[in-house]
Amino acid sequence: MGTTQLESVPEPKYWHLRTVLSEALDSEFSVGEILPNERDLAARFGVARATLRQALEQLELEGRLQRRRGVGTTVAPPRVGVAVGTEQHAWPGAADDAWQLADCTQAVPPAAVVTALETGADEPVHIVRRTRVSHGRPVAAELLYVPASSVPDLSAIDAPSGPARARAVLRELQRLELEGEDRAVELGSASAEDAKELDRLPGAPVLVVTTRFFAEGRTAALSVALYRADTCRLTFGDSGKVEIHHGPERQAS
Amino acid sequence: MGTTQLESVPEPKYWHLRTVLSEALDSEFSVGEILPNERDLAARFGVARATLRQALEQLELEGRLQRRRGVGTTVAPPRVGVAVGTEQHAWPGAADDAWQLADCTQAVPPAAVVTALETGADEPVHIVRRTRVSHGRPVAAELLYVPASSVPDLSAIDAPSGPARARAVLRELQRLELEGEDRAVELGSASAEDAKELDRLPGAPVLVVTTRFFAEGRTAALSVALYRADTCRLTFGDSGKVEIHHGPERQAS
Repeated sequence: MGTTQLESVPEPKYWHLRTVLSEALDSEFSVGEILPNERDLAARFGVARATLRQALEQLELEGRLQRRRGVGTTVAPPRVGVAVGTEQHAWPGAADDAWQLADCTQAVPPAAVVTALETGADEPVHIVRRTRVSHGRPVAAELLYVPASSVPDLSAIDAPSGPARARAVLRELQRLELEGEDRAVELGSASAEDAKELDRLPGAPVLVVTTRFFAEGRTAALSVALYRADTCRLTFGDSGKVEIHHGPERQAS
Repeated sequence: MGTTQLESVPEPKYWHLRTVLSEALDSEFSVGEILPNERDLAARFGVARATLRQALEQLELEGRLQRRRGVGTTVAPPRVGVAVGTEQHAWPGAADDAWQLADCTQAVPPAAVVTALETGADEPVHIVRRTRVSHGRPVAAELLYVPASSVPDLSAIDAPSGPARARAVLRELQRLELEGEDRAVELGSASAEDAKELDRLPGAPVLVVTTRFFAEGRTAALSVALYRADTCRLTFGDSGKVEIHHGPERQAS
C-alpha cells in the first residue's frame, strides 16, 4: 500500500494557529461571546487571512466555534450529550422516545436499504421521517424504513400521510416482538433537505447512526439518523453516571 | 436563538457537483482506480477548479475518495466496520483485544481527564498508548489513562516504559473487577502526532470514542481513542448478523 511520507510533513500553520486560538478561547472568551472580525484576528496572530479562516473552520468542525450569518463567529457552548444506545432495547415510538414524528410516505428505498431489509428491488416501504430536539435545538433528522411485511395489519383507512400516518406505522410496528438491534456510527454530510431540518448549511458534517431492528429472525426496520456533528456527543451504555462536560478533543489539546 | 435564514439558501454548486460525481463513481469507476486530473474533471463537468476541489474534498471526507501524494485521487474501498461496543464488558488488554501496545508514560493528564478520574490536579497517572490495526491498516490511536490507585500493586521494578510497561499496567488493571463501562462518540480532528500514527495529515477528521471503565464504584480508567473517519464505520451491539456493506451516506444519495 502506498503511504504518504508523513514523517516529512511538518505541522501546518493553520493547525498551530488552531491550537493557539483554542487556548485563547479557554482563557479569554466565554460561551456566546462574539469573536473580533477576521482582519483584527489575523493581525493579532500575525497570519494571513486564509490561514486564519482555515483555523476557524477547523474550530467550527470541532464544535468550539459557531458561525452564523448576521451575527458573526461566537464561542460555542459545550457539546450536548445525546443518548443513542439504551440499556433495554426499544422500538421507535416507545413512550420515552425523544423523537417527533414529521411525515410518512411510501417509496422504494435506496439500494443499500433494500439489501439490509431484503425487500424486493422495486418494493415500496413505509418511510417515516422524524426529528429529534434537545434543549430546544434540532439535533438529529431520521429516516426510518419499515417494510410492509413488518406492519401487515396497517389499514389503508389510516391517515394516508403526515404525522398521523407515521404514528399508525409505529403503532403497528410495536406489535412485533423486538429481538435485538445493532448500530453503526460513521461520518457523513447533510444533504440540502437534511441540513434545513438541522438548521445547518448543506454539506455540514453529521454523525450518521444506522440502526437495524431485528424481529421474527430478520431486519424488521432500519433507521438512518443524522446527528449534528458540531453540537452533539453521542452517548452509549450505562447512563446516570458522572458527566464529562468537555469533549475529549478539548481534553487532548 | 438566532438562526440562519436557511430557507433562502440554495444548494451550493459544489454540493450538486458532489452528487453528480458520486453517481459517476458508482457507474464508471471501480475501487482503487485513479481519477482524471483536476483540469480534465473541471472541464468535463463545466465547473471552476475551486468548485471541483471543494466537491473532491467533500467526497474524501465521506470516504468515497482517497488522495495520496505521488499517486493522485483514487476511488476508496468501502469503509471498514470496526467493532467498538462488545456484548460482554472487558478490560483493555483482554485476550481477544484488537489493540497493539505502543508505549506507557506517567504524566498529569488534561483537565477534563482529571475531572473524570477524580485524581488530584497535579497527580500523574499512567498513560498507555495503543494502536489498532484492521486489514493491515492503522484505524485508531488511543490514550488510556490509568490512575495509580487502580494499579496499587504495580511494581517500580517492572519495565519503566515502552510496551513492556504498558503490558504490566494492563495486567494489574485486570485484577480489578469491571463493573461497567460507558462510551461517547463525537467528531474531532487528529493532532500532528495522532495523524502520523493514523497515516493521515494533521487536522484529518476522526471519530473520538471516549470510554469510561467503572470499578470499585468509580472511574478506574479512561480511554480516548481516535478512529479514522474516512475509512471507519464504528459498529455497536449484536454482531454476526448480516453486514451492510455500503455506508448510509451512500444509501441516502
